[in-house]
Amino acid sequence: MESETAPRLRGFHEDFRWDGTSVLPYKEEGSAPFKAISRQLLFADPHLGCELRYFEMDAGGYSTLERHGHMHAVMIFRGRGHCLLGEEVREVRPYDLITIPPWTWHQFRATREAPLGFLCMVNAERDKPQLPTDAELRALGANPRIAAFLAGSHTA
Amino acid sequence: MESETAPRLRGFHEDFRWDGTSVLPYKEEGSAPFKAISRQLLFADPHLGCELRYFEMDAGGYSTLERHGHMHAVMIFRGRGHCLLGEEVREVRPYDLITIPPWTWHQFRATREAPLGFLCMVNAERDKPQLPTDAELRALGANPRIAAFLAGSHTA
Repeated sequence: MESETAPRLRGFHEDFRWDGTSVLPYKEEGSAPFKAISRQLLFADPHLGCELRYFEMDAGGYSTLERHGHMHAVMIFRGRGHCLLGEEVREVRPYDLITIPPWTWHQFRATREAPLGFLCMVNAERDKPQLPTDAELRALGANPRIAAFLAGSHTA
Repeated sequence: MESETAPRLRGFHEDFRWDGTSVLPYKEEGSAPFKAISRQLLFADPHLGCELRYFEMDAGGYSTLERHGHMHAVMIFRGRGHCLLGEEVREVRPYDLITIPPWTWHQFRATREAPLGFLCMVNAERDKPQLPTDAELRALGANPRIAAFLAGSHTA
């Protein structure tokens, strides 16, 4: 059972780029709401059940508010920000660990002053994210702390 | 399809420990050669095809020289050291990425001056490592750079 994958070392650069690793769009533009966020696929291989990705938002950027049947295993990697994690808004710092179980609403937001980068381990085979309906958004926003987070005014 | 896993944030501490995460023995003592290395299981869940572990060696410590049918996806996380990666000895630094394909001999060694910590993503279901036979060790050691690495004299 020899592998066709070669041993490989990819160096890290201070601007949070890695040798041989491309900076990709987060998602297809217009497919969902997000702002100023990029994606790098650090590890993806047929031998691995998961992928490891690095997402980075500029100051003021945010990921999509979504949920799905697959789980996320996240490690904050740089900067400062907050995440919506089910019913809670939490401040996050490097190298906090965040477990996002299946069907949990979640979103990451950088502060207005600093970028926010995180590693995310996820199953290679996974379902597509769901966006909230208007009714689900209203239900989430009934919590004032979540409403402020969704409006981006939680750090004001 | 509701999950029994709860959303969870585990804070990072400056001594490279995380809330709610235990520091475990690297392996059973006496089962294989290693020195001054610990293990923390950062993510392991029935919903995930992989685990994410954090291994840390004290200065002068090393992991086991071994190979196996499963793949390792490694990110160096703290300190300084070297790794044997198949036929090569490479210096490693935080946040370098290392791909260790199936059946590739590998070992990590901290320098004598600094610890070495790394993240390792690995399939949850995997085979047991193989140790080198005496003949395999001799074959590896025919390369002077690998011989020095195996003797721990590569940084002298």
